[in-house]
Amino acid sequence: MKILNDTDGMQLALDWAAKGINTTTPNPRVGCVIVRDGEVIGAGHTQPPGQAHAEIAAMRDAAARGHGVRGATAYVTLEPCNHHGRTPPCSQALVAAGLARVVAALEDPNPLVAGRGMATLEAAGIAVRSGVLADAARELNIGFFSRMQRGRPWVRLKSAASLDGKTALHDGQSQWITGAQARADGHAWRARACAILTGIGTVKADDPQLTVRALETARQPRRVIVDSRLEIALEARVLQGEPCWIVAAQANPSKEALLRAAGHEIIMLPNADGKADLPALMLELGRREINELHVEAGGKLNGSLIAAGCVDELLVYLAPCLIGDAQGMFALAAPAHLSHKRLLAFHEVGQVGADLRILARFIPPQE
Amino acid sequence: MKILNDTDGMQLALDWAAKGINTTTPNPRVGCVIVRDGEVIGAGHTQPPGQAHAEIAAMRDAAARGHGVRGATAYVTLEPCNHHGRTPPCSQALVAAGLARVVAALEDPNPLVAGRGMATLEAAGIAVRSGVLADAARELNIGFFSRMQRGRPWVRLKSAASLDGKTALHDGQSQWITGAQARADGHAWRARACAILTGIGTVKADDPQLTVRALETARQPRRVIVDSRLEIALEARVLQGEPCWIVAAQANPSKEALLRAAGHEIIMLPNADGKADLPALMLELGRREINELHVEAGGKLNGSLIAAGCVDELLVYLAPCLIGDAQGMFALAAPAHLSHKRLLAFHEVGQVGADLRILARFIPPQE
Repeated sequence: MKILNDTDGMQLALDWAAKGINTTTPNPRVGCVIVRDGEVIGAGHTQPPGQAHAEIAAMRDAAARGHGVRGATAYVTLEPCNHHGRTPPCSQALVAAGLARVVAALEDPNPLVAGRGMATLEAAGIAVRSGVLADAARELNIGFFSRMQRGRPWVRLKSAASLDGKTALHDGQSQWITGAQARADGHAWRARACAILTGIGTVKADDPQLTVRALETARQPRRVIVDSRLEIALEARVLQGEPCWIVAAQANPSKEALLRAAGHEIIMLPNADGKADLPALMLELGRREINELHVEAGGKLNGSLIAAGCVDELLVYLAPCLIGDAQGMFALAAPAHLSHKRLLAFHEVGQVGADLRILARFIPPQE
Repeated sequence: MKILNDTDGMQLALDWAAKGINTTTPNPRVGCVIVRDGEVIGAGHTQPPGQAHAEIAAMRDAAARGHGVRGATAYVTLEPCNHHGRTPPCSQALVAAGLARVVAALEDPNPLVAGRGMATLEAAGIAVRSGVLADAARELNIGFFSRMQRGRPWVRLKSAASLDGKTALHDGQSQWITGAQARADGHAWRARACAILTGIGTVKADDPQLTVRALETARQPRRVIVDSRLEIALEARVLQGEPCWIVAAQANPSKEALLRAAGHEIIMLPNADGKADLPALMLELGRREINELHVEAGGKLNGSLIAAGCVDELLVYLAPCLIGDAQGMFALAAPAHLSHKRLLAFHEVGQVGADLRILARFIPPQE
């Protein structure tokens, strides 16, 4: 493949970045492609934390293929880092390697970088360009940008319902409403998330594992359970395997001790009503380096999260069926006036098997 | 445009057929293209009832353009009629004109035709072919086929709701939820219907006109109001203008007389519960030559129609918003078991302005 212009180079770097979609957390997903005379001589993407960033991976790839990178151009989907984190700064590695030109999709929102990576390169005499395919690069790291800029994760709430918006019968009876392809697709969204959040209601009703099983993944997302009164049974399937974070609002020393003994962590975050403080939880998850939070909960917690303004995006699967008078996707009080309905924008709509998949993003109310 | 094969010829004939989509009722929408040596020498489509059928319109077009049709090929989207209805039989006109070949998309389901049109042509020595783009031709006349084959209209139920499936607040407060483009699109669906059906609940709540206004049309669909107890006010906007059919279940001689005096017709169709017998109404509308019935009603009548198995297709607009605890699209009892949910198949999904438009068809329960 010949790289004829910066857009082609960056698109290829984005393709590489996407290879790390399930594994870079809490780092952003970054790709890097090194080009000389239109030929790709090295490519790579961010490895799991503590291992190589994309630029280093691409330079190593070039070396492994017998190419020197001196005088070449690097396309990188995020400004190279300029600080010592888990790894040394990439900007200095690029300078040391003698790259002639570095094209970045956009500036790193990390306040430890924020322009200084590009400035370091420029000061070293490297030609720099920024802003190529910036929107696509930001989109791929929507969670990382959210955490850096707002201090909280990008929250994607998944629901699967009939065309009339129902998820289960009033007697609690529920079963797969959507088809196998939609369920597998849902697992792919789980896999890319840093954490999966559910509520005690869903744990009691469905006893889910909340793991990624429909596809191979090198990392399971952290599971977070909102359980204000610590009602969860130690036998719950979600508590087996890797440790969970349990968000509580009412102290229960003996239950807490049992849960801690089983390896789980209690996050005590009561609000004035003695329930879990959801906005405070989002900030806490931000502090814990959760970029993308995937919510799979029942109508009640879904509604509370939406009402608290904690949800950024809905991932809704609609199955081709009607259920009738039954439980809805979101237990949400209606506004006093229809003009105050909660506004969304459809971001992406398509068919997955026989079902519809709708991605819709909340439009923040105007002040 | 050169016609290189039968598929191209039939596609062009279908394009012509679609020009009559709002005006041929109760006749099917048919198009005809006459081709000689790959050149289109005449084209036409079915005119309003009593006027020319597509074949005659196309032959007249050829004549007006100075072309003889002897020895040419006619592409027609439905088997030419063979009976004296409002107009003389087209099959004989094609024979008389000396066409060499007639290609039809599919057989006319009208028991008065049903193969006899093609047989007449063949007996006269014309080469015939049937079955080219048959599915598309049937789709365009889905209502005509329904009436001919099932004795009842194709029933398309339109609803516009928020993404959580809500149409109005519990206090009755409602306003446009979808945008201007979706509303105009809804009028295009009204325009193609033979009749528009609503219920007394909607008349009381919204006082709609139920006319086509967002686009030009040479014909307004018949308005049908289900009003079991004849509660409709004579001042209702739907009763102004062209006459309506009012479907009642309880006699009320004085009100009936007033409505008749205003030009409206009462269709008395009680069921055992003293309500309007909806399945019987569908058969009655079939007898009255309604091919496509467009339903715009409230959740209650919508639910009753669906529960009675009267609805073939849902036309759902979903707006990018959430309303919460409010009125749903269909007041429908849930099944005792989720496995008995009502099954649909998504037929077409797309965006109309900022809204989604979903066409979904019911899958009849297996016996």
